[in-house]
Amino acid sequence: MQTTDRFLRACNKEPVDCTPVWFMRQAGRYMAEFRAIREKHALLTVCKTPELAAEVTLQPLHRFNLDAAIIFADILLPLEPMGLAVDFVKGEGPVIYNRIKSKKDVEALRPVSPEDTLGYVATAIRYVRRELTVPLIGFAGAPFTLASYMTEGISSRDHRETKRMMYSAPDAWALLMDKLTCVIGDYLQMQVHAGAQALQVFDSWVGALSPMDYRTYVSPYMKRLFARLAPLGVPVIHFGTGTATLLEMQKEAGGSVIGLDWRVPLANGWRRLGDDVAIQGNLDPLVLFAPLPEIKRQVDDILTAAGGRNGHIFNLGHGILPETPVEGVEAVIEYVHQKSARPISKPIQ
Amino acid sequence: MQTTDRFLRACNKEPVDCTPVWFMRQAGRYMAEFRAIREKHALLTVCKTPELAAEVTLQPLHRFNLDAAIIFADILLPLEPMGLAVDFVKGEGPVIYNRIKSKKDVEALRPVSPEDTLGYVATAIRYVRRELTVPLIGFAGAPFTLASYMTEGISSRDHRETKRMMYSAPDAWALLMDKLTCVIGDYLQMQVHAGAQALQVFDSWVGALSPMDYRTYVSPYMKRLFARLAPLGVPVIHFGTGTATLLEMQKEAGGSVIGLDWRVPLANGWRRLGDDVAIQGNLDPLVLFAPLPEIKRQVDDILTAAGGRNGHIFNLGHGILPETPVEGVEAVIEYVHQKSARPISKPIQ
Repeated sequence: MQTTDRFLRACNKEPVDCTPVWFMRQAGRYMAEFRAIREKHALLTVCKTPELAAEVTLQPLHRFNLDAAIIFADILLPLEPMGLAVDFVKGEGPVIYNRIKSKKDVEALRPVSPEDTLGYVATAIRYVRRELTVPLIGFAGAPFTLASYMTEGISSRDHRETKRMMYSAPDAWALLMDKLTCVIGDYLQMQVHAGAQALQVFDSWVGALSPMDYRTYVSPYMKRLFARLAPLGVPVIHFGTGTATLLEMQKEAGGSVIGLDWRVPLANGWRRLGDDVAIQGNLDPLVLFAPLPEIKRQVDDILTAAGGRNGHIFNLGHGILPETPVEGVEAVIEYVHQKSARPISKPIQ
Repeated sequence: MQTTDRFLRACNKEPVDCTPVWFMRQAGRYMAEFRAIREKHALLTVCKTPELAAEVTLQPLHRFNLDAAIIFADILLPLEPMGLAVDFVKGEGPVIYNRIKSKKDVEALRPVSPEDTLGYVATAIRYVRRELTVPLIGFAGAPFTLASYMTEGISSRDHRETKRMMYSAPDAWALLMDKLTCVIGDYLQMQVHAGAQALQVFDSWVGALSPMDYRTYVSPYMKRLFARLAPLGVPVIHFGTGTATLLEMQKEAGGSVIGLDWRVPLANGWRRLGDDVAIQGNLDPLVLFAPLPEIKRQVDDILTAAGGRNGHIFNLGHGILPETPVEGVEAVIEYVHQKSARPISKPIQ
């Protein structure tokens, strides 16, 4: 495991010796070590057992020269103490058995004290920090993305129940987003207090919205959430997919780092967002399946687009897929570090 | 059924008395008349029986003041004569039992004479034209979108098999796209010869690609396809979803009308594409589930963005969903016609 603060330096737009790399879902099924744990324990058990969550968090760090770790957890964890019955069905992904259908259901959602109900995440963070020599990222789902799971009950392609509530029951929607914003703010604060040195807010499905709907139904809550997080004093990464037409509004909502997916050419995205923000991204996760020359070609394009500017964090545009070859992951990390290596001016002694 | 050529006039960027409206999947499960037919006949039976396909095509025209019809068919129909076993499984969507896995599989795909193997579509077009008083649109899937179904075997979220072939077996990919481009060109030509007065090319899933991958792996085939279609002398609508970062390349590839989904603000999309192209779109299909005031608010925004310019065809950003309330469909059509009504200068007698 290497010792480096280049991830945090990049988040703060400071000079680095080479571009930092980490991957969403870097602890996952593509690794034999992870599958070995998951053969013995259900996903929720791993999340709720700090020793296991810490072990799994560290697995990719033992194997690869990654520049950051991300605590192993699931974005749906805060939904359980709110009153939802969350399960993970093999091959189907998450399922919520009592999905939110009405304002009454929203009203019945319980307030959450993260310390009392999600303390296992804080404990896992403390365990990981003891062993880790690179920065640790905490995370949570964004209100819209969590509201989508809560109203759909499953991962949805068209988010129809979510939008139906948005359009047809705007007061129920407002209350749901309000409750989620509070819970997520408290939950992320707990993670920072436990030792998370950066945060990522996953608004994975927000790209399903028109810019107008984002402005009306989502942006006010994101502004509140980021205003709540700013005083915590750690970099916050604002991530989504399919957000090509939302980027400016996402930046306005908040975050010191904006995540781009592979659909937005990095140079173009950065130009739109301006130089006062750092950028994370943006390789298509499927490129990790490609032969080495294609991997290098696509990494080269991203590094060229970043142009050696301060504030680029290399990542995928979404999480690593379960079937990804380990060799692809390794190749990208090594190649990014090698190709982006640059002299860094030292302070005069 | 109304008599109007305002759809074709808008495709050609000529003045119209009001903005024409049609909907993708306007013949579909949201209509009781359609469900009655589907209770008695499988989807493929409806497609392959010209009397039934014609009846279903006309159903929404009998009920609503739509400005165009689209022939009832499925984008996967050409895959069967090429050698694929296509089925539609209730609640699961399309399934291909012998999906394409290798270059050998691509080589084994049969050349297709649409007249011999897809003639039922031409017959249905002739039947519809006899009764129809508005223009009839023919259509086909675009090569990438069909290649995705062929390699995945099902509707895919991440298109992993498709991209794996693109990156890892570029010669197999090139051959597959080449074969599809030929088949689709012939198939659309047959539809025009049978009476289709406009065409739509559905590249529904192309928004999964980065702009760089679109340029490398898709654009050359789209250019060939549109070059093939241009001499047919009918407007061609180039449609995709999630294409916010591909629009300029899509226009460059071809099409007299570019389809926008709801993620691209219409005024912004049109500005990027320029005034030499017509625009189709771009209401979120979920807005049809909304109460009337929200529907009107969202339609108003689109009409304001179009600004009464010649060349706007009102549509959704994707197909009508099966559970859509008929009242929403009706409300949008009436409201678009009413709000966009404008004096049209008559030629001097």
